[in-house]
Order: sequence, then structure tokens, then C-alpha cells
Amino acid sequence: MNVIDPKQFRNALGAFTTGVTVVTTRHGGIDIGLTANSFNSVSLDPPMVLWSLAKTSGSLQAFNENDYFAVHILSNRQEALSGRFAKRGIDKFEGQALTRGHGEMPLLSGCSARFECRTAYRYEGGDHVIFVGEVLNFEHFGLPPLVFQSGGYALAVKKPAEYAAEEAAYQADSFGRNALTYLLGRVFHQLRYQLKPQLAAHDLNDVEHQVIGVLGVCEERPLSELDALLKVSGQSVDAAALAGLRERGYIVMQGAPDPRVSLTAAGRQINIELVAATKSIEDDALEGFDHGEVQVLTHLVRRLAHATRADTPPLWTRSREAV
Amino acid sequence: MNVIDPKQFRNALGAFTTGVTVVTTRHGGIDIGLTANSFNSVSLDPPMVLWSLAKTSGSLQAFNENDYFAVHILSNRQEALSGRFAKRGIDKFEGQALTRGHGEMPLLSGCSARFECRTAYRYEGGDHVIFVGEVLNFEHFGLPPLVFQSGGYALAVKKPAEYAAEEAAYQADSFGRNALTYLLGRVFHQLRYQLKPQLAAHDLNDVEHQVIGVLGVCEERPLSELDALLKVSGQSVDAAALAGLRERGYIVMQGAPDPRVSLTAAGRQINIELVAATKSIEDDALEGFDHGEVQVLTHLVRRLAHATRADTPPLWTRSREAV
Repeated sequence: MNVIDPKQFRNALGAFTTGVTVVTTRHGGIDIGLTANSFNSVSLDPPMVLWSLAKTSGSLQAFNENDYFAVHILSNRQEALSGRFAKRGIDKFEGQALTRGHGEMPLLSGCSARFECRTAYRYEGGDHVIFVGEVLNFEHFGLPPLVFQSGGYALAVKKPAEYAAEEAAYQADSFGRNALTYLLGRVFHQLRYQLKPQLAAHDLNDVEHQVIGVLGVCEERPLSELDALLKVSGQSVDAAALAGLRERGYIVMQGAPDPRVSLTAAGRQINIELVAATKSIEDDALEGFDHGEVQVLTHLVRRLAHATRADTPPLWTRSREAV
Repeated sequence: MNVIDPKQFRNALGAFTTGVTVVTTRHGGIDIGLTANSFNSVSLDPPMVLWSLAKTSGSLQAFNENDYFAVHILSNRQEALSGRFAKRGIDKFEGQALTRGHGEMPLLSGCSARFECRTAYRYEGGDHVIFVGEVLNFEHFGLPPLVFQSGGYALAVKKPAEYAAEEAAYQADSFGRNALTYLLGRVFHQLRYQLKPQLAAHDLNDVEHQVIGVLGVCEERPLSELDALLKVSGQSVDAAALAGLRERGYIVMQGAPDPRVSLTAAGRQINIELVAATKSIEDDALEGFDHGEVQVLTHLVRRLAHATRADTPPLWTRSREAV
């Protein structure tokens, strides 16, 4: 028989993606709970689930002596709760709104699904005990679940049924129909297109809109920096391009030869309106996306922004450049 | 005790995300295999894993009589294999490149990780039998794994450690630093910016580049349609804007009052070069992303393109409009 390296074995097991659960019980008048990803379904009739617990766990006695336990499948907003119930030496239940189940079991809220169980079997499993519970009661809250993969948290996005066909088309398409640059540009332009009425109402062209946006982030900039920042989007800015914004009282320019440009109160107001309108358009566009999908999309686009960053002055000078 | 509705119970269990495995063995000279997501780790020392099998399964006898089985954690490119091993009445192993493990077990390739096991325990589990296997040997191939959630396949993206902070900044930021429109525009412009040398080499401006791209998809268009298509990105096209492309022999225009515009052989050649250059820039940008992440990003951006589509003529007229 081969010798199994525990670290490599653990890493290989990490290839199996899981949800994350918190399993709770009550023992000697004290609420007990721990984070586990060793949960799985066993039987539909009778309804049964299982999970396993290290024999070295300080909670083993509680689960051995109380036949009731609850399994909470955590939602993707409960990463902090997962961390909390994986710690030792803290009051894990502090600040948690609890209800009570069978045998006074503590029940947590905000999860994706919850199962109240009575232990049917405790089985030998090497350095763990396998608990098989008959499900007495359950609730399915439908929140997107937290995911664990390769030793870290992950975000999962459902594959639509037509995905395999899409993927095949992507492989086959040499003309860029599914090319990411095209898709990104299309989405960006379509989102911007919906802002046109607001820009028209304020009689702002594209360069003027961008200048207001940049100054909205960091209220004062040398003209040369504005020009360098807009260069990436194919625009250039000089005093003539800013004349319209000055005349309407949205910006002021001071100094020479590289004047510092800043927003006036009226300019800041316009910026706030445009940011709000952009946010509203985004919210409409994202209506069919769940919270986890928006997180994933934003995260990946942010990484791509970082990976493709150009050699321009930082836009966000108030704090460390994040993207 | 409450009555458990099996369908609702199954849906609630689906909230627990899992990987997908194919478990194989050999019995009476025949290779046996089936898809299971009831896998989980049990013990590190001794190394043990478990999975469960319905008592009604035709494969039960094989797993009862052969003590050796192999668990394959499927990679995200093995969705078809998952479907294949979930079917009945077909030769599941047809066309699969197999190697042989302990007890002549069939071993499949292309998975994320693989465990060769000897059954240590067979436990009662309601309508299923729980198989606990001692791991004799394993391999970790490191491919991104296939994920199953809420009754369908999913794609998982790792959350980097700094994600919680990112998320907090996103919630706190009222000025759009993390706003999706801004990020999408930034990425698009940064990708396009890297194409500038190629555009300059061909002396193409932005409108000319877009016209060549649109005609590259569908080689002939009325001028009015070109104009309508470019409107979303804030451009407009008329005969004057196309004069440069005509003079250089990249396009021809025929008819009046709405001439049909088409690419010449030289124009098609330029398009191929620009598409290839764009692809190469994209590939560089995506170097730090794994296959699953690129799939997720492309899928989500495509959905967003669909959700924000404007009332313009279809770009892709050769087949059904996908986005």
C-alpha cells in the first residue's frame, strides 16, 4: 500500500466543491455549533442526511449525547458566520438571532436551507465519526449558497441549459462573435446609450461627461492629467474642449501653463445626478442577475481592469489604486 | 413528526453545492460506473472518503462484491461525461481512454482528481447504502472542477482573500469607483487602447475600424443599417465618413439612395488581421484567469449584453441573434 501524504490528500479532496454548513446542537444548557463541509444527502425515503465530525473535536460529546442537531446550509452572505463557527474559544452564538427547534436546538437565520434532524446512526469513519440524521423538519429559504473549493470560498454561477451549445459556438467562432472585447464594448455602449437623454438634457458631450466624472472622483486635476486619463478612451482634452463647461459654470481653471481644473458646486451637482442615473440604469440591467452573479461579474471585470491597466496617472488618488 | 415532501426535500438539499463524481468498479469482467454527487471526505488518517448508492441501483451488486472502486472528481470540461454516466442502457465506457487500477478498476482521465479506494465499511442509510472507502492511491490533476447546484451545473469562481474588503468598499462607495459601467468601460477602452498601434499602422480611425468589424460579420450592409448599428456606440456613418475606406480600396458602395456597403478582398484581409490582433490582446489580458473564470465572465457579459440590448438592427444576421 502506498503512503498517503496528508497535505496532498487534503488538496486533492479540495477539488470536490462543497457548500458550507453550520451544524448546531445543545448540551448541558449550552448552545454548540461548528462549521462543516462534510455534509451530504443520503436518503429521500426516509429523509436522511449525513456529516462527519473529528473524534478530537470538543463538541463530540454534545453530538453523542444529544440526538437532535440542525444543519444550516449557509448563504453566500454568511462567509463571516462560517469563519466564526470555525473558530475556537469564542462565544459563537453571540449576537445571533436564534429560534429553537427540537430538543432546544439553536436555529440560525439567513441561511439557504435548514434541516432539523434526529441522529439515526453514528458510524465509525477513521479519525471522524459519521453522523446520519433523519430529517424531522426542514426549511428552504432559496438564498444563493456559499461555496467552498480548493481550500477557499468561491462564488458559483448557474450554467443555463443552453450553455453547452454556447460553449461549442464559442470554440467554433473565428470571427469574434463571442469575443470578450466585442461583448464588453457592446455592453458598455448599450449602458451608456441609455444615459444619452440625461446627457442631452444637460447638453453634455462625451468628453465633457468624462471630465465631470473624473473630477467627481478627485475634485481637482491639472489639465495635463485630465488629458492623460482620457487618452485611454481615445479622447483628448485641452482648454478649448473645456470652454463649454467653464462657460456654464461647471468647472473653474486656475494657473498656467498647466491649469488646475476643478468642479464648482454646480458641477458637483451635475456629477451626482449623472452617477445616480448611471446606477439606476445598471440596476435595471442587472435585474435578472442574483447577488452572487453580480459579485462574480464585478470581481472578474475588476481583475481584468487591473490586468489591462495602461500607463496613465492613477484615477483614484484618495486611496491606494485598487484596480 | 412532520411529513416530508420528497420534491421539496430534494430542492432544499440542492442548496448544498457539490462537485460531481463518477464512481467506477469492475464486476464479472464488465466495467461499471455511475455519476454521483453524494461524495465527501471522511478521514485524513487513515485516508477515507464516502459516497452513497441507491439500494435500487442495478450497480449495487457490483459494488457489494468488488471491494475496489475509484472516485473521479470531474473537471468543468466533463459535463458530457457526467450526463453519460448518469444514463442507463448505454455502454458508458465506449470511446473512453481507460487505464486500470486495483482489482482491474477502470480509471478515466481528464478529471480534477481521482481516488482509488478499497471499501472499508458499507453502512445502512435509508434507501441508500453508504460506502466508506479507504484511499489506497490518488492523483490530483488540478483542473477546475465541475459544480452542481440546485439541480443544475454551475461554474465556480474562487473568491480571493481580499474579496470581503472589496465587497465592503463596494457597499461604501457612493462615487462609482466600483460601478460596473465604469469598470466595463475601463476594461473595454484599455483593451482597445492596445490595438491602437495596429489601427495606426493601417491609418484607421475608430469609425472606420467599427465599420470594417461590422462588415466582417455580415459582408454587405445598407449604409442606413451601418449608421443604426454604430449609433449605440455614439458614432454616425454617412458616405463622407466612408470616403477614406473607399479610396483605399477596403470597401465598395453600390446603389442609391441607400447604398449597399461591402468589404473588398483587401478589406476582409484587414478585418482578419484586426480580429487576430484583438484576440491576441485578449489572450494576454486573460493570462491570469483560469478556463472556468473566462467561461463565467463571458457568460455573464453575454447575458448583460442581452439585458441591455438597444433597438438596433441585428448585428449577426447569418444566424439567430444570440445576445
